[in-house]
Amino acid sequence: MPKVRFKISMSLDGFVAGPSQSVKDPLGIGGMRLHEWAFALAIVRAQFGLAGGEVNESTPVVEESLANIGATVMGRNMFGGHPGPWDARNPWMGWWGDNPPFHHPVFVLTHHPREPLRLEGGTTFTFVTEGIKPALDQARRAAGDKDVSLAGGAKTAQQYLAAGLVDEMEINLVPTILGSGEALFAGVGDDLRGLELVRTVATPAVTHLKFARR
Amino acid sequence: MPKVRFKISMSLDGFVAGPSQSVKDPLGIGGMRLHEWAFALAIVRAQFGLAGGEVNESTPVVEESLANIGATVMGRNMFGGHPGPWDARNPWMGWWGDNPPFHHPVFVLTHHPREPLRLEGGTTFTFVTEGIKPALDQARRAAGDKDVSLAGGAKTAQQYLAAGLVDEMEINLVPTILGSGEALFAGVGDDLRGLELVRTVATPAVTHLKFARR
Repeated sequence: MPKVRFKISMSLDGFVAGPSQSVKDPLGIGGMRLHEWAFALAIVRAQFGLAGGEVNESTPVVEESLANIGATVMGRNMFGGHPGPWDARNPWMGWWGDNPPFHHPVFVLTHHPREPLRLEGGTTFTFVTEGIKPALDQARRAAGDKDVSLAGGAKTAQQYLAAGLVDEMEINLVPTILGSGEALFAGVGDDLRGLELVRTVATPAVTHLKFARR
Repeated sequence: MPKVRFKISMSLDGFVAGPSQSVKDPLGIGGMRLHEWAFALAIVRAQFGLAGGEVNESTPVVEESLANIGATVMGRNMFGGHPGPWDARNPWMGWWGDNPPFHHPVFVLTHHPREPLRLEGGTTFTFVTEGIKPALDQARRAAGDKDVSLAGGAKTAQQYLAAGLVDEMEINLVPTILGSGEALFAGVGDDLRGLELVRTVATPAVTHLKFARR
């Protein structure tokens, strides 16, 4: 049975982005600290066309998170941070460049209709205005017998979590604090909706906490 | 060199007690979930005079946290949750019973002066109104060449953390969310003041994250 999965890097105090997020600074103040462990890895650097990097205990965790994904759902801010209606004369193409790293169909949650955007390398962005369930239904159909990845941001993850629609989540817990910013579990309540800790992989730079349904 | 240490159980969303804490419900709603891993352990049950319990990977972590403590500092609520001045005619004796589990000097942070309270088993509660640094100085002197334990609650830990006075902290991260309550790192800012992750011990029920100065 195909799964709905997400992975996210979170600080010890529960934030997945720092304060003062903006189009110029999408991770917020200090937010880059959450991703240093990842950018040190060869497998992550390769995704961005960069040589070098480490192979360590995090490598198989990242490999697993990248495998068997047939479609992705993301929030509007994760696609590209311009709020409000799309400008038809000068449409924002998002942060992902001409050849985005997805190579499969991506469904973007937005309040503003837009024609699909077909880019190099097999990535098509489809804009869904009907809400999280229709977006997930479309992504499941596109994924076939592969899994659907929720790429974030936090608000997207929160909505699917609160609706009980997440089958697996990998929290990459980074041993730092951000003090404020975007809290992953804000609004989710006090219940992980059947998700339980099933695996922990620890390095000095990050603790990978995998949750799944038993 | 003696150290200032604390250990605390925290939810995945950063809370060390649930919402609606009260004298009747000192851990707040859902807060007991943070301590189930501990009460399953023989070493913790024995502290409360209870037989049985498990020995697992958490046992040596708890043993280490109990060893070499010469004095304890705690907040007023951790001693006993009645706010305001002490009632001299009917002084609240705290939550710890006639024979508290400390067996060494305990310094209680309070705004309200009170004579020391000497109980069975070597535990003396001394009430300190001069603030966190004088309380720590007194505890250091009482501890001699042993360490000082900060027993909590969260506000006590936060104040010592923010002042850069903590040498070691053990976060017992419990894979559950509480949604609201007392956030361990509230007001601490975005900086762990030189504390770095030095050891991780993982079980299905809890992830022990030890921070220290390198």
